[in-house]
Amino acid sequence: MNFTPDDHRYMAYALQLARRGWYTTQPNPRVGCVIVRNGQIVGEGWHERAGEPHAEIHALRMAGDAARDADVYVTLEPCSHYGRTPPCANALLQAGVARVVAAMVDPNPLVAGNGLRLLQQTGIATASGLLESEARALNPGFISRMERNRPYVRVKMAMSLDGRTAMESGESVWITGAAARRDVQLLRAQAGAILTGIGTVLTDDPSLNVRLTAEELGIVGEVCQPIRVVLDSALQFPLNAKLLELPGEIRVYTCSDDAQKRTLLEQAGVIVRHFAGQQLHLPDVMTALVADGITEVHVEAGATLAGALVEQGLADELVIYLAPHLMGSSARPLFQLPAIAQMSERIPLEIRDIRAVGQDWRIIASLKPEVKN
Amino acid sequence: MNFTPDDHRYMAYALQLARRGWYTTQPNPRVGCVIVRNGQIVGEGWHERAGEPHAEIHALRMAGDAARDADVYVTLEPCSHYGRTPPCANALLQAGVARVVAAMVDPNPLVAGNGLRLLQQTGIATASGLLESEARALNPGFISRMERNRPYVRVKMAMSLDGRTAMESGESVWITGAAARRDVQLLRAQAGAILTGIGTVLTDDPSLNVRLTAEELGIVGEVCQPIRVVLDSALQFPLNAKLLELPGEIRVYTCSDDAQKRTLLEQAGVIVRHFAGQQLHLPDVMTALVADGITEVHVEAGATLAGALVEQGLADELVIYLAPHLMGSSARPLFQLPAIAQMSERIPLEIRDIRAVGQDWRIIASLKPEVKN
Repeated sequence: MNFTPDDHRYMAYALQLARRGWYTTQPNPRVGCVIVRNGQIVGEGWHERAGEPHAEIHALRMAGDAARDADVYVTLEPCSHYGRTPPCANALLQAGVARVVAAMVDPNPLVAGNGLRLLQQTGIATASGLLESEARALNPGFISRMERNRPYVRVKMAMSLDGRTAMESGESVWITGAAARRDVQLLRAQAGAILTGIGTVLTDDPSLNVRLTAEELGIVGEVCQPIRVVLDSALQFPLNAKLLELPGEIRVYTCSDDAQKRTLLEQAGVIVRHFAGQQLHLPDVMTALVADGITEVHVEAGATLAGALVEQGLADELVIYLAPHLMGSSARPLFQLPAIAQMSERIPLEIRDIRAVGQDWRIIASLKPEVKN
Repeated sequence: MNFTPDDHRYMAYALQLARRGWYTTQPNPRVGCVIVRNGQIVGEGWHERAGEPHAEIHALRMAGDAARDADVYVTLEPCSHYGRTPPCANALLQAGVARVVAAMVDPNPLVAGNGLRLLQQTGIATASGLLESEARALNPGFISRMERNRPYVRVKMAMSLDGRTAMESGESVWITGAAARRDVQLLRAQAGAILTGIGTVLTDDPSLNVRLTAEELGIVGEVCQPIRVVLDSALQFPLNAKLLELPGEIRVYTCSDDAQKRTLLEQAGVIVRHFAGQQLHLPDVMTALVADGITEVHVEAGATLAGALVEQGLADELVIYLAPHLMGSSARPLFQLPAIAQMSERIPLEIRDIRAVGQDWRIIASLKPEVKN
């Protein structure tokens, strides 16, 4: 497909618009749309929140009659099905646009291309694949659900330069400085859910909420509190946990049959989901998260749960805040990964970004890099 | 002191000249000199190797008569004593220069300022402190010897992202890629000595030599092989060690009284230095290194010796190559530092630089940062 410099420019702007939904569209994808006629932007929009109009509809409304014979740039293939809102492909058709360029087709392999085909069949020119990797980066969770039926899992850890996350005693407050902790707030805010283990709840009694204001997040309207999901095989969740005092949904995934404890938790507002077996099986947890509409998961847990996610290939991304300290060889490891015995078994990463965050450094790494060493 | 933009420019150039001696001046300091008359550089020079002329002499020779009434920029206060060469202050005097600007005074507190005072007394204008921190960075070893009577100690380690330097079995080849290993060659080449422990010699049988050519180092003449120093309390040094096959001096520091083993090692060309006690005491080792003319030490050792240097406050700088892998929680730690039990006891660092080196990342950190958190 040949795209012009103007095509790139308009799509880049559509990507920018999509990013305005960074903290609000969950579980929907972030999408931006630009409508151009005779070299003029006549309409633009982005998806803001689930249940509200899609990006294309906002842009069409702004363009009005000017959408006729116009070029439409959209970061994700327009939908062709009836969901909470009518299909956008229909709306584009009715508006009489001349051409639709999508950065990427629908990641669901079963419907991929249907929206564009529908438009093509009525004589509208279509194209896709313009700035596709940038568009994919907008929606790792949505794409992961569609392509793999599991969420995109981002594991956040704070460690010393020597790779330690807590003292032997468990003491770990605070490894990183205020700037890093604020940065974590942004990671939480962009996630559909925050996942932790009962160990962390019992040891640290964390809040795991978003404490930034709408203004600080640069959004209009209410701050979305991600769902807090606690993995708690034996239903040890304490009824005086700080989590229960804060706004936002709490789900406890458990294998326990303790009906009394379950009732008490439900009375405290917790949604309890029961799993078969003695111990939670992480792949089942992932399937359940997707079934619960959660596609982008932010993990803040101890070395055991984080290590198990890495070991089982369920972690997609590591966000590691590296503090300028040495905590020593008695301190706790970054990940409990005791099974690696040989260099050939080590787990390869792709380090995507390293930058200073206040006094600390943030390392973003992908697991399973495409190019292995 | 007020310096002009031209002063800065000439001193910056003198610093650049000094850097040409990066791999050759040990144990002497790296020094550059620029002589300027009527806005023209009439002389320039740098110190190249111990026993050869100092930077000022090279620059004066080039300037000839043009040095009269000229401004001289030198990165270190001109010497005023007779060493292997006559004092540079005298030569400047004889050349009739008008002004001498030094980036820093002599770091030896007993002679600091003497060279400049000698010049001043004869009517030459003098100044110091221009680009001083840059000048100090040229000669950490020389300055450390003068100010602290111990060498500047740089500890190089290679680790996985989770802070591990070897598998539980000891397997560690290769943690980092070719680019990082080549970078280490540059660190070795700039050091006066490479320090390791007998454990590393017995386990890895390392070469610890500089394998880059003069051309690769950008130098004229022979590559200087740093002295290899092995800490070997019990004199276990194997007579078939690879170290013995390679050019360059080897010193073994020991507490052993085994005269026979000592003789065998000496016959193999090793210099054996005896220390009192059962076990080498690291502060004594540092004093001995300085006494042996070694001021910039590059440590390539295991977690035990490296950890002891850190613990005893004898490591000044860490150069850590971070490989994009996880080696797991059974693998060996970065430093053996088991005594740290509380967060308040952790060792603060100042991370000075992080950059990509091939597929790996290099972190340079100082211990004992001036601003603690």
